[in-house]
Amino acid sequence: MQDKKYIYLDNASVTRLDERVLEEMKPYFFDTYAIPTSETGYSMGIEASEALDKSRETIANALGAEKEELIFTSSSTESSNMALKGVAMALGDKKGKHIIVSKIEDFPVLNSAKTLENQGFKVTYLDVDEDGLVDVENLKESITDETILVSIQHANQEIGTIQDIEAIGHVCHEKNVIFHTDATHTFTRVPIDVKKLPVDLISISAHTIHGPSSIGAIYIRKGTPIKKWVDGGFQEFNKRAGIENIPGAVGFAKAVELVTPEENKKIQEMRDHVISRIMSEIPQTTLNGHPKRRIPQNANITFEFVEGESITLHLDMRGFAVSTGSACFHRSLKASHVILGIGGDPERAHGSVRLTMSRYNTMEDIDAVADALVEVVGKLRAISSLGK
Amino acid sequence: MQDKKYIYLDNASVTRLDERVLEEMKPYFFDTYAIPTSETGYSMGIEASEALDKSRETIANALGAEKEELIFTSSSTESSNMALKGVAMALGDKKGKHIIVSKIEDFPVLNSAKTLENQGFKVTYLDVDEDGLVDVENLKESITDETILVSIQHANQEIGTIQDIEAIGHVCHEKNVIFHTDATHTFTRVPIDVKKLPVDLISISAHTIHGPSSIGAIYIRKGTPIKKWVDGGFQEFNKRAGIENIPGAVGFAKAVELVTPEENKKIQEMRDHVISRIMSEIPQTTLNGHPKRRIPQNANITFEFVEGESITLHLDMRGFAVSTGSACFHRSLKASHVILGIGGDPERAHGSVRLTMSRYNTMEDIDAVADALVEVVGKLRAISSLGK
Repeated sequence: MQDKKYIYLDNASVTRLDERVLEEMKPYFFDTYAIPTSETGYSMGIEASEALDKSRETIANALGAEKEELIFTSSSTESSNMALKGVAMALGDKKGKHIIVSKIEDFPVLNSAKTLENQGFKVTYLDVDEDGLVDVENLKESITDETILVSIQHANQEIGTIQDIEAIGHVCHEKNVIFHTDATHTFTRVPIDVKKLPVDLISISAHTIHGPSSIGAIYIRKGTPIKKWVDGGFQEFNKRAGIENIPGAVGFAKAVELVTPEENKKIQEMRDHVISRIMSEIPQTTLNGHPKRRIPQNANITFEFVEGESITLHLDMRGFAVSTGSACFHRSLKASHVILGIGGDPERAHGSVRLTMSRYNTMEDIDAVADALVEVVGKLRAISSLGK
Repeated sequence: MQDKKYIYLDNASVTRLDERVLEEMKPYFFDTYAIPTSETGYSMGIEASEALDKSRETIANALGAEKEELIFTSSSTESSNMALKGVAMALGDKKGKHIIVSKIEDFPVLNSAKTLENQGFKVTYLDVDEDGLVDVENLKESITDETILVSIQHANQEIGTIQDIEAIGHVCHEKNVIFHTDATHTFTRVPIDVKKLPVDLISISAHTIHGPSSIGAIYIRKGTPIKKWVDGGFQEFNKRAGIENIPGAVGFAKAVELVTPEENKKIQEMRDHVISRIMSEIPQTTLNGHPKRRIPQNANITFEFVEGESITLHLDMRGFAVSTGSACFHRSLKASHVILGIGGDPERAHGSVRLTMSRYNTMEDIDAVADALVEVVGKLRAISSLGK
């Protein structure tokens, strides 16, 4: 590869680790590596326990939560599995077997719902409008006496649309239904305060905010009926088993501290700039997702008459990493269920390109990718068999 | 704390990270951080995919397995949950709802079995003899037409006894029953070759061999009926969802490479030395676990008339970290189910101390802890209210 800077714009899939996060983790690799449950046995355990406790508090506070309400997991994927299956185990036999999700949830929620469906649960998959928004009235009508859980994402992984989780949560709580939201793509980027928001369970992860791989968490509002899902030891207030990942927790907390409102503003400016340039300079393009209610880091655009796959490959040759359709689906090349969910056809899904900005991007990167897109889309259209 | 070296001997709970492991991981934090499923989209994904593939091969080879049989998880805890619950989901409705485990399994297996019991499965908890060994004839008699899975650990987490998994596996396979073994405490320390051993599922982890936190794996023999347990994306041959932890996988592979037969021999010499010194210099002590069939790193000894908790605290003041009873149970001070399982009474359990050697211990450490134990046990017995 040329000596040119490689510009990574697939930050929804995973982000580069921040060096400051690694520095914070190092003492827990090499000096204070004990497990915190050993605190009753030896002093290194106390230090480990304090580090875990402090990290828990930092992350809980970023949600407006108490630290006892924050359970570390290995990922937001695990958190969402626990949310759906843990509530199903707690209430399935007691209250009912009906769960409601949106059609454009990310796969951890969608496929956990499908597993529960195979086990005898009834699942309602709510439609969304062309911007990706759930209709709150429709949700209200879907809730029955059997409904135990509503799981609707805070923002979409592909098109970035932010749901009205306040209104959704109020509907759930009026009807005495537990409300889970997957906040993987909003945590620290879009404010969440559980003291004000009627939400009971929240999935979050470090991998989207320059934190370490393989650490996530679930917020569990005090008193929420949910069973332990990962069985084993008595870690995490006996709510999730497994040797505690102290370096991961410490790194996650540092990653949370490093996100600032200024950074989010800068990221949003880059996003607005790239959308504005593409929409004005490249004809026959569609912005996927809500024009206003969207996460600061996401731009998702369909280029008519071109395959997203071709665009990503041609951009890669020019030194840019972007994604198309759903990252998890890359291998199968199936049309994104999100674009289909907002009423797009398979062509619109296949022609979509997602750019996700992060701390490590600059306005120069954004101009460079916009220039490259103008060139690449122009060339591909010239040879396209898909349309004019 | 004094400027004295702190000697950590609780390596069964977690081990210090090896600096060489971190060095190997670094490029995947900062340079090649893409997700491997993006390999169809951009070049950084290819590099990530290759790193994952190579790590998978290294770890699979250490078990004599094909790389397609090795699935990364977040921990051996998750692996064991998947083994028990995944097989239960695959065969519970088709073949039967009977599972067999030993009474001294570690909590991930034991409590997964209990969860399945609550869901209508029948679980047989096999007794072990005074050395901790399962009676293979007893196992054979326990298997019924309804039995779908036998889960018996390779070696015990507390007393180090190594089961005869070859004989156990043969019994299982003669009866057409799937055999899972938790090899968390044997992987790379005691040879396992799945080409020769009749075992279908194996749980392993990096945290016991100076690898990173929060990465484990499960070996799944080709053709073994097991359902996906962590739902979400299509990672890991569609057997386990979640953004791949590439730095973790790379670090795990490096940790595997760093364990040598020479190291295991050195560790075993330290173990033999500490057992020999304690048994000859401190009267009224019992070695817990099998005298010969035990993992090289484990010594577990009961000191009569003394609380293990007192010993660990007094050793800590002198700069040694050791554990007592089950680490997971530290907070509750319940008697270890393992010591009770081998016929011990609660006193024997409470008076037990576990020393686990690692790469970072020396024979000098071992002599120092033996000296300290002689002193501490002597003083505690002088003031003991538990016996003479």
